[in-house]
Amino acid sequence: MKAQSQTSDVVATISRSKASGKSALRAWLRLWACVGSVERVVRTRLYSDHGMTLPRFDYLSQLYREPDRRMNMTELSRRLMVSGGNVTGLTDRLVADGLVKREQDSSDRRVQIIVLTDDGYERFIQVAREHEKWIGELFEDLSPDQMRVLNQTLGQLKQSLEEKLNEQQEA
Amino acid sequence: MKAQSQTSDVVATISRSKASGKSALRAWLRLWACVGSVERVVRTRLYSDHGMTLPRFDYLSQLYREPDRRMNMTELSRRLMVSGGNVTGLTDRLVADGLVKREQDSSDRRVQIIVLTDDGYERFIQVAREHEKWIGELFEDLSPDQMRVLNQTLGQLKQSLEEKLNEQQEA
Repeated sequence: MKAQSQTSDVVATISRSKASGKSALRAWLRLWACVGSVERVVRTRLYSDHGMTLPRFDYLSQLYREPDRRMNMTELSRRLMVSGGNVTGLTDRLVADGLVKREQDSSDRRVQIIVLTDDGYERFIQVAREHEKWIGELFEDLSPDQMRVLNQTLGQLKQSLEEKLNEQQEA
Repeated sequence: MKAQSQTSDVVATISRSKASGKSALRAWLRLWACVGSVERVVRTRLYSDHGMTLPRFDYLSQLYREPDRRMNMTELSRRLMVSGGNVTGLTDRLVADGLVKREQDSSDRRVQIIVLTDDGYERFIQVAREHEKWIGELFEDLSPDQMRVLNQTLGQLKQSLEEKLNEQQEA
């Protein structure tokens, strides 16, 4: 009876873990599809309504979120998860347009700091207000309750994924 | 009193819509962060454990999901949302490795069909099993109840976004 019961337990565990694997895979494919769709809308509207590209918007938003609107180039590149070359080219164009400026770190002249200018700040705010409106429209079919639970679950997932990524990097 | 009440209604509507805008923006940033983290893990493990790139895996998975394991090049490019040039290069390499083959549509010789070969099918299955396992591990901190609600909400959001995208294209 014990062996029988243990076998059943093992079978139950396998099917449970398979079920949760399928359920996780479904969630992942849906997450991916949703992000793809929202990105398409945002990319199109940013460009058609504001002549701004998505990488440019992401770049400015990273600086905007910092308390002193500045970040070192290495950290900025890491967050934008694109190659250093691309960030350099993007920076050149944003500097030319007066939206950001380059500074050297006072304590280590080899470290380059990128600063959001006042013009860049104004420009970002203007586009970000619209961006927030589009996102609101895209999510409008979800009820306040669904939004609350979704935010809670995604917040937990985000934190759990960050912890797993850190463990992986340390391993 | 009527005017007063109408004004309150308008104010209430504005703050409600602002609140929902913030809540939607938060959900969007979390969705994006989660997808970014999962993609990083999948990209790294696909390459380190199977010598396979993410675009290659996505390409094979599109064909795998079709009942007859074949798709025309135009549709495949659209789904992979990369430029035609990239898909052509990727196809060349997959053909060279014997994982897919090119065929011409019997009813219209200008239409190119891509077919998953038996080798491609076997190779994809092998990697997809592992992929499903990684995804299961990445989502393991969510309870079965959370997974169920998440899948439900994301399913609804996915459909709503697709409808909005279709309306936009038709407009």
